[in-house]
Amino acid sequence: MTVTHNSKKVGQMNSNDRKNPSLIADWKTLERIFIRPEDEACRKTLVKYMEQILFGLHDFLNSNVGVTQEISLLELTNLYRDTLISPDPEKKLENVISDIIHKIAPRAVNVASPYFVGHMTAAIPFFMVHLKTIVAALNQNVIKLETSKVLSVIEKQVLAKIHRLIYRRDEAFYQTHVQSVDTSLGAFTTGGTTANLMAMWVARNHFLGAGVEQQGMAAAMQAKGVERAVILVSKRGHYSLKKAGGILGLGNSNVLAMDVDQHQRMDMKKLEVTIRNLKKDGKTGIIAVVGIAGATETGTVDPLGEMADLCLGQGIHFHVDAAWGGPVLLSERYAPLLKGIERADSVSMDGHKQFYMPMTSGMVYFRDPGAMDQIAYYSNYVNREGSVDLGIKSLEGSREANALILDSSLKIMGSRGYALMIDHGIETAKAFAAEIEQRVMFEVVTPPELNILTYRMVPPDVCRRLEHADPKGREILNGYLDELNIYIQRTQREAGKSFVSRTRICPVPGSEGGRVVLRSVIMNPMTTNAVLREILDEQERIGQGFCDPIPQIL
Amino acid sequence: MTVTHNSKKVGQMNSNDRKNPSLIADWKTLERIFIRPEDEACRKTLVKYMEQILFGLHDFLNSNVGVTQEISLLELTNLYRDTLISPDPEKKLENVISDIIHKIAPRAVNVASPYFVGHMTAAIPFFMVHLKTIVAALNQNVIKLETSKVLSVIEKQVLAKIHRLIYRRDEAFYQTHVQSVDTSLGAFTTGGTTANLMAMWVARNHFLGAGVEQQGMAAAMQAKGVERAVILVSKRGHYSLKKAGGILGLGNSNVLAMDVDQHQRMDMKKLEVTIRNLKKDGKTGIIAVVGIAGATETGTVDPLGEMADLCLGQGIHFHVDAAWGGPVLLSERYAPLLKGIERADSVSMDGHKQFYMPMTSGMVYFRDPGAMDQIAYYSNYVNREGSVDLGIKSLEGSREANALILDSSLKIMGSRGYALMIDHGIETAKAFAAEIEQRVMFEVVTPPELNILTYRMVPPDVCRRLEHADPKGREILNGYLDELNIYIQRTQREAGKSFVSRTRICPVPGSEGGRVVLRSVIMNPMTTNAVLREILDEQERIGQGFCDPIPQIL
Repeated sequence: MTVTHNSKKVGQMNSNDRKNPSLIADWKTLERIFIRPEDEACRKTLVKYMEQILFGLHDFLNSNVGVTQEISLLELTNLYRDTLISPDPEKKLENVISDIIHKIAPRAVNVASPYFVGHMTAAIPFFMVHLKTIVAALNQNVIKLETSKVLSVIEKQVLAKIHRLIYRRDEAFYQTHVQSVDTSLGAFTTGGTTANLMAMWVARNHFLGAGVEQQGMAAAMQAKGVERAVILVSKRGHYSLKKAGGILGLGNSNVLAMDVDQHQRMDMKKLEVTIRNLKKDGKTGIIAVVGIAGATETGTVDPLGEMADLCLGQGIHFHVDAAWGGPVLLSERYAPLLKGIERADSVSMDGHKQFYMPMTSGMVYFRDPGAMDQIAYYSNYVNREGSVDLGIKSLEGSREANALILDSSLKIMGSRGYALMIDHGIETAKAFAAEIEQRVMFEVVTPPELNILTYRMVPPDVCRRLEHADPKGREILNGYLDELNIYIQRTQREAGKSFVSRTRICPVPGSEGGRVVLRSVIMNPMTTNAVLREILDEQERIGQGFCDPIPQIL
Repeated sequence: MTVTHNSKKVGQMNSNDRKNPSLIADWKTLERIFIRPEDEACRKTLVKYMEQILFGLHDFLNSNVGVTQEISLLELTNLYRDTLISPDPEKKLENVISDIIHKIAPRAVNVASPYFVGHMTAAIPFFMVHLKTIVAALNQNVIKLETSKVLSVIEKQVLAKIHRLIYRRDEAFYQTHVQSVDTSLGAFTTGGTTANLMAMWVARNHFLGAGVEQQGMAAAMQAKGVERAVILVSKRGHYSLKKAGGILGLGNSNVLAMDVDQHQRMDMKKLEVTIRNLKKDGKTGIIAVVGIAGATETGTVDPLGEMADLCLGQGIHFHVDAAWGGPVLLSERYAPLLKGIERADSVSMDGHKQFYMPMTSGMVYFRDPGAMDQIAYYSNYVNREGSVDLGIKSLEGSREANALILDSSLKIMGSRGYALMIDHGIETAKAFAAEIEQRVMFEVVTPPELNILTYRMVPPDVCRRLEHADPKGREILNGYLDELNIYIQRTQREAGKSFVSRTRICPVPGSEGGRVVLRSVIMNPMTTNAVLREILDEQERIGQGFCDPIPQIL
């Protein structure tokens, strides 16, 4: 019954298929990479690698304040066209790490730079890297207790902590549910997209009944007597909600984009009218109304309290997409902005956004601890009925123990540590908006409610002409401004020192088309006002190059 | 415009809400955790933490050969019932790490133990932890080029490498598609579950047309003139396929579990008859037929070539769930077992299974580089039309750059390095089956085709009686054996030295109910025959305790 390991040694290789003839995959090497390092020399080497990673990478990131090395996409893609897997090892770990530090990192994006204010990805606290390393070293799989044990227990506890932050139920409620086998306060997901998808999945099944999961959408809609099932969310809704409509079989055209008011928030009057009209014919089912707590593009927060009133009154599932804004609840000063969230039926949040966790982590919460029963799946070898396996009520299957990162981080920072970052972001964004308003070349398009704002460059001359132009003239002028702001964003991005993003926003409710705007997300505590002024200065220089001279057609 | 950081210092705290009165969240501390370590002392501390993680954890794992510390779930859950987030920091990173090593790790599951052969989660090569640390430190988000740049380019290259491993198209094909903006050879996902879901999503939209994504299942089925849309997979199919049916609005009862033959493989005759019957009335659409390359419970591989013939002939989407078995393609010796996979329309694979990556990583591949157009989603601020953003055709949203781990690992190991592990698993499983057959107390239920097998304890006395029993008697005897094998699996798991899993299998096609079996997955290269003999010895001791005496009723 003995397996001879010698037989595994690879002897039959051609000389021409070896990229690095000195490296051979053999059993001895293999054993070395699986067996824990015993001797001092071996340990030293492993620590040396980790030092390279921690400091080699970080020295690079420090010395490159800008966001990325200048190289065109075409040049870059030309370096990565080989599609054959080498039969033999090509490189040692040491060389792989060194290549990553010297060749790959410089062509990645320095999202940790204080000048990187364009997306919801930024610097994370240093200790997050250590915590992620622990999760990888333990390599638990929280799909089931048998591959995670205490990590599943910790996940349930962390879920209860965040549930309590949202819903503020009493101690007895949490004592009942924190470690309950039968009920679930929420679930970890791999991000806001799957968190929203899970919430809509539960809402769909709640509205149409258990039949939809078993018999499908067509049969369930027929049984319920509806011809259409819709989700209502404002125009500022994240595109993952449209995607959820597509995936779940509702149809993404049935995720209805509601108008917003002049503050980019759900227009409550129009929402009420829409619901009334949809209910009139009795042929349309409303699966959910979604409120946004921190819109991706503008950071705005819908009137959650009013939306809760409306939904509760009508028996409609009320979901809050708090992927961005959820952690604002950790700030005593700004938590009131999210008032009403405690009455939502479900809430989604991202771990890798304002909880400052590394990619990839999200969460979804349900007010009713029985809500997730709608989506339970069992199997014979894991997730048996009656077990506490977290995989039973989960969109994803195998999952790493990310809850340990959030648990540890909450202990290291406390809610007040998080509040410092949240408050800094909001207050710096407000100061940034004031600075933009002061400058003649810019206008704020959507002022920051949380820590996101949009603005655009409007040279004073164009601004004056806009005021006096007829509709046709305004269209031409705005087209010119769109081009200008696209040019600014692209040129600044390519220059590689700073990065803001751009999107297209209708500043006036009901107006056509929308304007290209620059978008800033202030989440890095190292992003100071001085940094933001530098970013504006650079944009002014770029813009002046574009506008000199302003074309005659205008 | 200056924000005074002093104002952020938290002054207003009650003495009774402070768990550790010496720790305060203030701006200075916050800056320290975001700013890169400059001085030598600071760097030494960070390396010290990493050493603690690398060796503290591993010393523990080494000294605990068994799988986990003995503690009841009730005791364990009682330790994790506090659901309030502390306002102030509770612990320093140092203490958090130390707690994880000394209090949490011993109550986690030592999945790296060679004695842990129960699930598809096992030891990973040491360098994987380093690679995951790099991914966390870079914290790129491959949803869009603007937050990942070269990492998106590397992801496309790795996808092409694995696509080529599966489909073996020519060099010209890969030169066209490896870095193409318009086409996609596949996608990274967070696991096999979402990979299968993505494949079924594409297949659904391909069958029903673009209308299903926009108008929903009910409208699309009506337009297509079908009353039911089904997926066909054998009884050995992974439960994620049923879940996909539920999520996608087909209904999980329309994921039809096909009979298997005596080798646990798809019964081709029955599949043909089923398809013929389903097509007869013209009211049922077949979304996909799924072949399994490495069934979760038995490791068996469906007759992929025959299934490809059948599906191609009938114009049915043929998906192969190779979440487990896919990497067998890296072994020259055993790749032929998967013959036919190169004709699949789509293939799913897990990164965190036999690619030995850390949790959480999966992939899905499509033969047709245009197939994923069916599921494209755009938005204004990212994933704009015409961009190369990987988030356009993806179930998930934000994602970490896991492709870098697979890319590096393929370079460090070469396909032959992987082949050593694959071959060891399959050959050790075969030797284990031979050992089981030799022992009078056991019988092999499903012999290993890859590196998974199931078996059960059948004491000789019960075996004899089974041979002569009438149906009623056999039922009683098998019930007794079920209890015996559940007892063995539980007792061994609780004892904490070794771990096999259990499931329920019908060994004879068409027979009722199924038997409880013990299930072994041999993927850890350190799992030797000696280890497996020890596991059997322990099971014999446990089983003898249960069977002494065998009850009179039998």
